[in-house]
Amino acid sequence: MSNIRTDLAMEARQIYKDDNNCEVPGVEVTEWEEEEGINVSTVKIIDEVGAKIIGKPIGTYITMEIPGLRHYDADFQDKLSISFAKQLSKIVNIQKDSTAMVVGLGNWNITPDALGPRVVSKLMVTRHLKKYMPNELKAGINPVCAMSPGVLGITGIETAEIVHGTVLKVKPDIIIVIDSLASRSFERVATTIQIGDTGLSPGSGVGNTRMSFNKASMGVPVIAIGVPTVVDGATLANDTLDLIMDKLIEESKGNNELYKMVSSINRDEKYLMIKELLTPYIGDLVVTPKEVDTLIEDASKIIANGINIALHTGVELKDINRYLN
Amino acid sequence: MSNIRTDLAMEARQIYKDDNNCEVPGVEVTEWEEEEGINVSTVKIIDEVGAKIIGKPIGTYITMEIPGLRHYDADFQDKLSISFAKQLSKIVNIQKDSTAMVVGLGNWNITPDALGPRVVSKLMVTRHLKKYMPNELKAGINPVCAMSPGVLGITGIETAEIVHGTVLKVKPDIIIVIDSLASRSFERVATTIQIGDTGLSPGSGVGNTRMSFNKASMGVPVIAIGVPTVVDGATLANDTLDLIMDKLIEESKGNNELYKMVSSINRDEKYLMIKELLTPYIGDLVVTPKEVDTLIEDASKIIANGINIALHTGVELKDINRYLN
Amino acid sequence: MSNIRTDLAMEARQIYKDDNNCEVPGVEVTEWEEEEGINVSTVKIIDEVGAKIIGKPIGTYITMEIPGLRHYDADFQDKLSISFAKQLSKIVNIQKDSTAMVVGLGNWNITPDALGPRVVSKLMVTRHLKKYMPNELKAGINPVCAMSPGVLGITGIETAEIVHGTVLKVKPDIIIVIDSLASRSFERVATTIQIGDTGLSPGSGVGNTRMSFNKASMGVPVIAIGVPTVVDGATLANDTLDLIMDKLIEESKGNNELYKMVSSINRDEKYLMIKELLTPYIGDLVVTPKEVDTLIEDASKIIANGINIALHTGVELKDINRYLN
Amino acid sequence: MSNIRTDLAMEARQIYKDDNNCEVPGVEVTEWEEEEGINVSTVKIIDEVGAKIIGKPIGTYITMEIPGLRHYDADFQDKLSISFAKQLSKIVNIQKDSTAMVVGLGNWNITPDALGPRVVSKLMVTRHLKKYMPNELKAGINPVCAMSPGVLGITGIETAEIVHGTVLKVKPDIIIVIDSLASRSFERVATTIQIGDTGLSPGSGVGNTRMSFNKASMGVPVIAIGVPTVVDGATLANDTLDLIMDKLIEESKGNNELYKMVSSINRDEKYLMIKELLTPYIGDLVVTPKEVDTLIEDASKIIANGINIALHTGVELKDINRYLN
Repeated sequence: MSNIRTDLAMEARQIYKDDNNCEVPGVEVTEWEEEEGINVSTVKIIDEVGAKIIGKPIGTYITMEIPGLRHYDADFQDKLSISFAKQLSKIVNIQKDSTAMVVGLGNWNITPDALGPRVVSKLMVTRHLKKYMPNELKAGINPVCAMSPGVLGITGIETAEIVHGTVLKVKPDIIIVIDSLASRSFERVATTIQIGDTGLSPGSGVGNTRMSFNKASMGVPVIAIGVPTVVDGATLANDTLDLIMDKLIEESKGNNELYKMVSSINRDEKYLMIKELLTPYIGDLVVTPKEVDTLIEDASKIIANGINIALHTGVELKDINRYLN
Repeated sequence: MSNIRTDLAMEARQIYKDDNNCEVPGVEVTEWEEEEGINVSTVKIIDEVGAKIIGKPIGTYITMEIPGLRHYDADFQDKLSISFAKQLSKIVNIQKDSTAMVVGLGNWNITPDALGPRVVSKLMVTRHLKKYMPNELKAGINPVCAMSPGVLGITGIETAEIVHGTVLKVKPDIIIVIDSLASRSFERVATTIQIGDTGLSPGSGVGNTRMSFNKASMGVPVIAIGVPTVVDGATLANDTLDLIMDKLIEESKGNNELYKMVSSINRDEKYLMIKELLTPYIGDLVVTPKEVDTLIEDASKIIANGINIALHTGVELKDINRYLN
Repeated sequence: MSNIRTDLAMEARQIYKDDNNCEVPGVEVTEWEEEEGINVSTVKIIDEVGAKIIGKPIGTYITMEIPGLRHYDADFQDKLSISFAKQLSKIVNIQKDSTAMVVGLGNWNITPDALGPRVVSKLMVTRHLKKYMPNELKAGINPVCAMSPGVLGITGIETAEIVHGTVLKVKPDIIIVIDSLASRSFERVATTIQIGDTGLSPGSGVGNTRMSFNKASMGVPVIAIGVPTVVDGATLANDTLDLIMDKLIEESKGNNELYKMVSSINRDEKYLMIKELLTPYIGDLVVTPKEVDTLIEDASKIIANGINIALHTGVELKDINRYLN
Repeated sequence: MSNIRTDLAMEARQIYKDDNNCEVPGVEVTEWEEEEGINVSTVKIIDEVGAKIIGKPIGTYITMEIPGLRHYDADFQDKLSISFAKQLSKIVNIQKDSTAMVVGLGNWNITPDALGPRVVSKLMVTRHLKKYMPNELKAGINPVCAMSPGVLGITGIETAEIVHGTVLKVKPDIIIVIDSLASRSFERVATTIQIGDTGLSPGSGVGNTRMSFNKASMGVPVIAIGVPTVVDGATLANDTLDLIMDKLIEESKGNNELYKMVSSINRDEKYLMIKELLTPYIGDLVVTPKEVDTLIEDASKIIANGINIALHTGVELKDINRYLN
């Protein structure tokens, strides 16, 4: 089991596979190219063995990898929204007139943490229209409500308590939570979208007892959508060192002593050593790309439009602006 | 009973008094100059007769009138925060370790409606600190939590439902709601603060069945703080016409015909006529001063600091920045 | 000559025409319905007599009146951008490879004054691309640069000095300035766009000696685009009183005394009386609709896209997003 | 000469010193503890040899290192503003009634690049007051103007051209430019302030021919103030590797082969190898801490207040709010 922090099932599976040269037991993986520039994979965790290795509950995790997401292009962005809606529909499968409640987690004052609130600000919210003017809405528009409850440091209230209190009133059929994630690789920041059907457990596994967002705590199914927006500094250093070690190993073929030395380094131990070495200098440094403002804005558009398309089956992308103000 | 729309008890009382040349029955009024530039009055509604005339529930309404509030000055602003905290304390009277929940009502995307959310963003939120590090906080800091739940058009959820759902979880001892108000006079915009102990009934009296924020609906006392930020267009026209009529009456002393004509106009009927005349041209026009961005910013600072001082008895104005980030 | 403050040539002409029952001498007016919901008129001031009455220099002023502009609809907004581009092209008539410099006037911190900076933030700026990668741009893209110089209160520098200093460096072939205007009618706020070929004279006619933005001061032709975003309080009161007087006159036919009295009021004198009466109460109150945030955002999108289409002849509306980030 | 990118004279000097175990020739360094938590050093480059090694023109560079700057505390922040004003005064030395022009460089849409515009938005701008109401200002207030000209990608105009064009009009006695810097160490991000008397050469040394901001290009002395807000990804990896190598060397004392191998790695070559290895994976990755929004806000307050104090000799920190908006 890896010590390297990641919120992505796909990444945890990759680390295990790289270290052990075999598939994770208790996990089924399917990978395919959805269309040019969009790779999709499904990690199905089928038992507790798999859950323990991946560090996530039994369930299904769809990952979209889109290296081009960072390079803004209106047409590609539209294509992505539609493609994301298609993957989301596999998991959400909303019934006609089911009420969906979308929750944008995170702190709107901290750009790399603001993905959730930004998505919510771009949603087509309709639940109140259904109630007050049912006949004015055309078929295929489902009741959607949305909120950005903030974070504990801003409200003084556990976010899950605000959400659960509201759920008791609204009685939605499904909850979709959106959150910024941490990845172990800079390549994935703002280029990967994960959709999971097991909700979200903030800070799970680090002795943190915060309330979860899942069916057990909320009473209805919780879908989680996440995009990596940060990487911890030790991870960045570690990844680089791996690259260097690979190069050293390659170049040291004739040098038995060095080869043995470098090869013998256990990569998990190495990560812990880096973490330990760095902490006095930079604390628990978490970094984000300089272009974070643009990355968050672009990712939030794609996700918001994808949710709009997936939840309102009678709506096409070109209709969405008509309802949004 | 007047048809002229106002959210201020003081203003409704003034209109009745002007029209009837006597105090409102069922109402007790006290007025004094708190300090230079700050006039305070208390309207105590003591029975249903008074409640019907004022258009508000039985209870106490403190109004601070500060003509100079619009002219930013750091020293005067500090004095105002302290003075506001003093008035607020008369109504809130928080016990040691009581939990207060502050709710900023209104739409953060519409500047004249954003007072509540802006106040909340400047509060000293401490409830989570009390819980996680009780010993690190010095005496006199009470548990305060805060939220800005948005508006129906943004969330698709009745705001009172979000608040009540959260109240059921947090179980505060008192709720303080902050809202932008409508006044019938431009002079009062951003220069008047009303504090009431009966909560808030959005759109009360206009056939609107939205949930109220009061002890009946929330289960705990609800204090409402409001500042006028808008005036409806018909009111502005009406006020001007009153000034003109006064001038005409004054100038027409020798002209019996004209004097009778102008004097005979019923001022409530006149307002309705203006409303009716204007509607085809400007709809339900509601206006705000051009400087609305600055006015909201300044008012929200004073109210936030006043709440900070009133709720945390061990804190002085100069300490507040230390806890705020 | 009217005392009523307006920045719209069309409005000044209307006031004259209403008061004098004839066309303004020295002025030629053409009016037509461009398409459903979009009325256009041209006021051509041909001599100094017309210039004095209208209060603007000899030149051409195109006014688009779009009552529906306030009701957001993505399709209508696109149609408007294209229609606005068509009118603008009549006046701008840009040559291939001419450099245009767009200047967004106004204070970005005051929402009703922020139209210019908002438009600039949505422009397709290309001058630097032409210079650094000429071959990568397809034909039909002209060099456009843009700036929002702020206002005197923010910079401490006359805005025209910043602009002229930059003009001396950039040497554009044409300057387009965008500014928020004052109208005398609330109906026109955010529903009217004026395009003029004589530049802009901030605070002209009120003894203000600030530098102008015109060919004389800048050395190249200056096109001015403006949208009314505010109305002064006295004007609003005055307009209402006009409506009331019209009704009183209508209803007082049998009442000679009253009819004479009301009819005899000179409407310009009345405005001055209102101004004088209101000033002690509200100062020089300037008001804007409560929805100002949305109005400015919508108007700035239409104008920015119209400029993008008019300046880059090889670009269609659907291409614009591709270049904008 | 080092290949490691840094905008800090102090850092370039440190690298040279670490690699060569001696002071940089042509450079004089003084270091002292200004007060608790504030370390100051002066790097005086006295000849071209020193200039070439440090990578900066002959001149004086004051560096303030304040590890505690990241931990917001209102009192410490005030102390810092005053201390920064003291250092700035050593270099600026403004004469009574000299006009200072402050220029906030950088892109306000990219948080880590927005330091300059944020500082400018908090300045006490007075040049226009001096001109329009000279008698209303008390002694000790100097004429200050300020602008945030944007960046080439936003305006399509070389920033130095906008500034120089404005300088020709305003004719200031001194220019102060503020910019975000790149550091080679994460510890320095938002904890170090550099003040230099030689202006700024954007992208100097990398074949970039952009105009400089210095006395030669502007005609008046240019002071540059900068704070590191970003680190390039390769640097972060490199620093970590240095730490690891130090540890390996320490632990490998008995292991001759390994010791020789690790010791023999040239640290500049190592950096280039890392850069080369990383580029295919992350491009020219530049990173910033997750808390970048707060760091920029705090640093801009300290610098703005320091400039306010340094330029207006008759003003104390407590007076500043009175004049600000």
